[in-house]
Amino acid sequence: MSSEFGNKLKLSIFGESHGKAIGCVIDGFPAGVKLDMDKVYMDMSRRAPGKDKSATPRLEKDIPHILSGVIDDVTTGAPLAMVIENTNTKSGDYSNLMTIPRPSHSDYPAYVKYEGCNDVRGGGHFSGRLTAPLVFAGALAKQVLKAKGITVGAHIAKIGSVQDNMFDKNNISAQLLDDLSSMPFATISPASQEKMRALIETARLEQDSVGGIIECAVTGLPVGIGANIFSTVESHLSSILFGIPAVKGIQFGAGFDFADMTGSQANDAYCIKDGDVSLLSNNNGGVLGGMTSGAPLVLSVAIKPTPSISQPQKSVNLQTMEEEVLIIKGRHDPCIVPRAVPVVECAVAFALLDMMM
Amino acid sequence: MSSEFGNKLKLSIFGESHGKAIGCVIDGFPAGVKLDMDKVYMDMSRRAPGKDKSATPRLEKDIPHILSGVIDDVTTGAPLAMVIENTNTKSGDYSNLMTIPRPSHSDYPAYVKYEGCNDVRGGGHFSGRLTAPLVFAGALAKQVLKAKGITVGAHIAKIGSVQDNMFDKNNISAQLLDDLSSMPFATISPASQEKMRALIETARLEQDSVGGIIECAVTGLPVGIGANIFSTVESHLSSILFGIPAVKGIQFGAGFDFADMTGSQANDAYCIKDGDVSLLSNNNGGVLGGMTSGAPLVLSVAIKPTPSISQPQKSVNLQTMEEEVLIIKGRHDPCIVPRAVPVVECAVAFALLDMMM
Amino acid sequence: MSSEFGNKLKLSIFGESHGKAIGCVIDGFPAGVKLDMDKVYMDMSRRAPGKDKSATPRLEKDIPHILSGVIDDVTTGAPLAMVIENTNTKSGDYSNLMTIPRPSHSDYPAYVKYEGCNDVRGGGHFSGRLTAPLVFAGALAKQVLKAKGITVGAHIAKIGSVQDNMFDKNNISAQLLDDLSSMPFATISPASQEKMRALIETARLEQDSVGGIIECAVTGLPVGIGANIFSTVESHLSSILFGIPAVKGIQFGAGFDFADMTGSQANDAYCIKDGDVSLLSNNNGGVLGGMTSGAPLVLSVAIKPTPSISQPQKSVNLQTMEEEVLIIKGRHDPCIVPRAVPVVECAVAFALLDMMM
Amino acid sequence: MSSEFGNKLKLSIFGESHGKAIGCVIDGFPAGVKLDMDKVYMDMSRRAPGKDKSATPRLEKDIPHILSGVIDDVTTGAPLAMVIENTNTKSGDYSNLMTIPRPSHSDYPAYVKYEGCNDVRGGGHFSGRLTAPLVFAGALAKQVLKAKGITVGAHIAKIGSVQDNMFDKNNISAQLLDDLSSMPFATISPASQEKMRALIETARLEQDSVGGIIECAVTGLPVGIGANIFSTVESHLSSILFGIPAVKGIQFGAGFDFADMTGSQANDAYCIKDGDVSLLSNNNGGVLGGMTSGAPLVLSVAIKPTPSISQPQKSVNLQTMEEEVLIIKGRHDPCIVPRAVPVVECAVAFALLDMMM
Repeated sequence: MSSEFGNKLKLSIFGESHGKAIGCVIDGFPAGVKLDMDKVYMDMSRRAPGKDKSATPRLEKDIPHILSGVIDDVTTGAPLAMVIENTNTKSGDYSNLMTIPRPSHSDYPAYVKYEGCNDVRGGGHFSGRLTAPLVFAGALAKQVLKAKGITVGAHIAKIGSVQDNMFDKNNISAQLLDDLSSMPFATISPASQEKMRALIETARLEQDSVGGIIECAVTGLPVGIGANIFSTVESHLSSILFGIPAVKGIQFGAGFDFADMTGSQANDAYCIKDGDVSLLSNNNGGVLGGMTSGAPLVLSVAIKPTPSISQPQKSVNLQTMEEEVLIIKGRHDPCIVPRAVPVVECAVAFALLDMMM
Repeated sequence: MSSEFGNKLKLSIFGESHGKAIGCVIDGFPAGVKLDMDKVYMDMSRRAPGKDKSATPRLEKDIPHILSGVIDDVTTGAPLAMVIENTNTKSGDYSNLMTIPRPSHSDYPAYVKYEGCNDVRGGGHFSGRLTAPLVFAGALAKQVLKAKGITVGAHIAKIGSVQDNMFDKNNISAQLLDDLSSMPFATISPASQEKMRALIETARLEQDSVGGIIECAVTGLPVGIGANIFSTVESHLSSILFGIPAVKGIQFGAGFDFADMTGSQANDAYCIKDGDVSLLSNNNGGVLGGMTSGAPLVLSVAIKPTPSISQPQKSVNLQTMEEEVLIIKGRHDPCIVPRAVPVVECAVAFALLDMMM
Repeated sequence: MSSEFGNKLKLSIFGESHGKAIGCVIDGFPAGVKLDMDKVYMDMSRRAPGKDKSATPRLEKDIPHILSGVIDDVTTGAPLAMVIENTNTKSGDYSNLMTIPRPSHSDYPAYVKYEGCNDVRGGGHFSGRLTAPLVFAGALAKQVLKAKGITVGAHIAKIGSVQDNMFDKNNISAQLLDDLSSMPFATISPASQEKMRALIETARLEQDSVGGIIECAVTGLPVGIGANIFSTVESHLSSILFGIPAVKGIQFGAGFDFADMTGSQANDAYCIKDGDVSLLSNNNGGVLGGMTSGAPLVLSVAIKPTPSISQPQKSVNLQTMEEEVLIIKGRHDPCIVPRAVPVVECAVAFALLDMMM
Repeated sequence: MSSEFGNKLKLSIFGESHGKAIGCVIDGFPAGVKLDMDKVYMDMSRRAPGKDKSATPRLEKDIPHILSGVIDDVTTGAPLAMVIENTNTKSGDYSNLMTIPRPSHSDYPAYVKYEGCNDVRGGGHFSGRLTAPLVFAGALAKQVLKAKGITVGAHIAKIGSVQDNMFDKNNISAQLLDDLSSMPFATISPASQEKMRALIETARLEQDSVGGIIECAVTGLPVGIGANIFSTVESHLSSILFGIPAVKGIQFGAGFDFADMTGSQANDAYCIKDGDVSLLSNNNGGVLGGMTSGAPLVLSVAIKPTPSISQPQKSVNLQTMEEEVLIIKGRHDPCIVPRAVPVVECAVAFALLDMMM
């Protein structure tokens, strides 16, 4: 029942969508790290709404205020606390959600679990807005990783029927990942991007929404991070990634495609390259026996369509226990996938740094 | 770097494949539970090798010896320790693996990580054999859940190109799950089972192996287990499931199929049924906002083909740093999927009981 | 290396003495608790400096701003974040402490550990000021405990040679504890208080400081909280209490006096009282086998004299590695014990509530 | 409710006094450590009963069987499991304890907590016998520490009215600690030992028991282990030490004597010695701001008299709820303090190694 993640590097996230503020405490961040706050703002900006038509027009000034753990942009080793004030919220839009749960949202189980005490405005503590502190924390982690030669990047692999080019799993350049990390709508193929944007616009006009798949990769990881059984890289990464609202599936390397492969097709054989051990393929997505193998880490996550759509939906009134038709007002993304790209990147970075400390 | 799982109900697994013994300590198991050891043996027997041609002929007498925490088959509330002695092991078969890592196994990263100190015989602590204590622990958890009206069951959804019938996500009977839990080769459709067996036998004759997908469901769960952000049901279950060797993907409900759906297709609307809140569909697989929704929990995991195949494979000699061709001797399953079914069931049961305590 | 405490109820404290703010996140606090903020302010006020001559004249407006987890003074079940802004700080006073460590303070080991990156102003994250969020968290916990009939209270048992009356360990009234909890300088005997105040004033005039002992008791606890080995009540309470700066010893019941007792003197025999099991004495301080026994919980902690004294002290310059005489300027308490009383109460309350959830 | 300790180095203890076996799993122990099992046996032998008249004549063959994590006396990095079979137990002696709780034992709260399901034979999981695995684990930790130049040792500081010489806190040699660690009845002064033995024998003849104080020191620790607030060295050490049955108090350095000191007397000033920072006194017992200071770590723990005495004691029958006189049969130590010395040493060693990993 905890909003905390991490073993040695701990992230504690707090806040409700329409409360006073959201934020986080990062405990265990190394001392003496010079932070590039512009890069942090850039990742937060990629996650923030209102960038283009694919996102909600609601404007959020997600300015992170650091309260502790940093002096003159250098970390002190003490817990790093950050707060983002909530502004520009329209709580009135959510008034009828108190009693009529939105389909595919947390509303109904939260109502049962908290017996009506939880903050329901904008989803409260269950809101996607709570990923802002996660991006903040991961953006800091990315800088520590970068100093070790480790690069994290992600792109939109698929939205609806439109596919982007996929990573060449055994041959990914840090430059490509950096390029993707600077794009507000990250795709490898510009043509795919256009088609995806069109598809999202269609969904918006139909008062509907669409889901998608994000593919993420990490280069430069040393061999042997993670361990077996309950400390696998896959366990740790999936644990944080399933903390992102709307994520409903995770796979590493070939993932679910392994079901159609034989061992002789699937196995990643070894060779010697430049005097060092290397792999001839990377179907395992850079993880063997729960540990990093030296090949790029490659994973993908499935994102469900934004559940908040403006079409009338069947629901129930939890007070009267009668069926009702729900019309969700307010401003909602027809597709959350582009904004989820930096969240996936940052979650992966944070979990990896935790495992490396 | 830990072989431990759980917050309130803790599982600590130990042992190496060809060492003296494997086992576990379960800390936090409730006092006063009358154990049905026959049911525990049955789950362990389903996981054990040598049942039929689809598995390795190596005979293991996986007899769990309970050392503490139980008197006259009733739990005392103290830590429950269990030991399985290792017998009938042929360590000689693995001698050349000391220096030549098996492709797609833990050998290479473990060699780097432990600097050659780890036990490599049979995969050591990374062996699939270490899932025996996990099944033991989960089999106990299943009995506590059953007493609460909660039933866990799984089946082989796919092996290679052969598909089984899938669960009707919003309409799964406890009886079906119980039936599947009693089958050594669990499929819903008998016809699918025959085709799968044939496919595995073909792989065996070709000195190859095949992967697959396991679908697991849980009925009877109360609404509101789990929480948001880092305590989601998906986070906790994926964390334990990725501890099972060969699992490379996990999805809940529609999972990766969400990418092809619109919100109006994907959303699970509410209705009133028998005076209570019910769902009209279950694309979310029984989890909303990280919490159980009252609908059956439905997830599936991807299992990669057994990496140990008898065909010659390219590898390297870690001492001489020269490329070598590796021939893996010993006895290996051409398909691990049937034996992984009870492991998935038991892992899910253990993680759920932990969340409910 | 963590500023976190708790298993089910987690407290994460952040901030530096002279930074922007200090505060905490409480994760796992139950939903639906109506908070009495006046009582919280009262406990924080007892800890705050400047109350009388026994404390530093530095004025702190320790106003806790709750950012999340509470609506209309009722908890929502989401993480409860609280921030106190730092004002009225004089960082200049500490400038020479950068290189010359104050004796018996954290300065020197922190300098070595953080390689000079830590915030040294006012002790930074090591400052006693960081107990303000601990008092806030414990004050909330006290309210939950009170609703269960559990009362926590403490008094100054000793300062220098002056002793207060001690608790009658097997006969402590909730009323006495409540009375002590409302006193800014908590003693059972008014005469002892006068003598203690005089002794502190003498130390102040001599530019010196004095230490003392605080005795704390809890009534109304059910039997069986805690467990054996590493989950004893004593382990959990000592773990949080040694987090209070200046605490250097802890004992339960007769504590160190047990060394002078025989078993026949020390053992707490049982009797039947009002139809229930009761104890004839309480040398064990309410804890048997690591669990609460039903008798009042009684513990005492030793507080060392405030290390910051104005007299010249021998120290070293960490830059030049030469010996130097240090004169500590600034405003410091000649005795921290009176202000530590609510801190001990609140730490005990928080740890007990964590064990009861 | 857990029998686990540690963050990075985890110890999970299991077993009941008169069950099949006791033991532990150590998770996170470094790979590649060559173990000297003779030294481990020596520490376990010092804890074992039956050495001389000061201990119970019950003979235990506490032979630790290592099941995993070690090959040819070298650790593999995998969890290290150890089992000690229980032999020579006389359960009959404890039959009437099922319903009549022994004063100052865990019997009564355990009865309430576990509702009669816990194993009461010989104290079950609450028995002092469970310190054997703790000694085993700590004895391994001591070897890792020794290789880093860190030495742990302890002695009986006091039994009843007889005092041993105390450590010179700022001047303790590793040789003295090693010498103490090899003694079955560890005192600095031989004369004190004789008087203590006589006092114990008197207690034995009077069917009574006596308590005492153990002082423990550690030399060679680097500066900066531990951290502030909830990760102090004192918090971590007290947390494990209060897991030893009969420990009722802990103090570091001057401890409770700080109450009688002024700051000018108590403060540990700095000097330069051999070109490095050194302390002129060590009243803080080697811990400043929760971190090691470079001076020897010095702590002492209070041990209550063995509660099991043969004299008639007042108790109650939990079935009939009537008062009864209890006569405890069986074999019991008139003084547990000498056997607790290696337990304290090993607990301290284990907790320190955990903090250093």
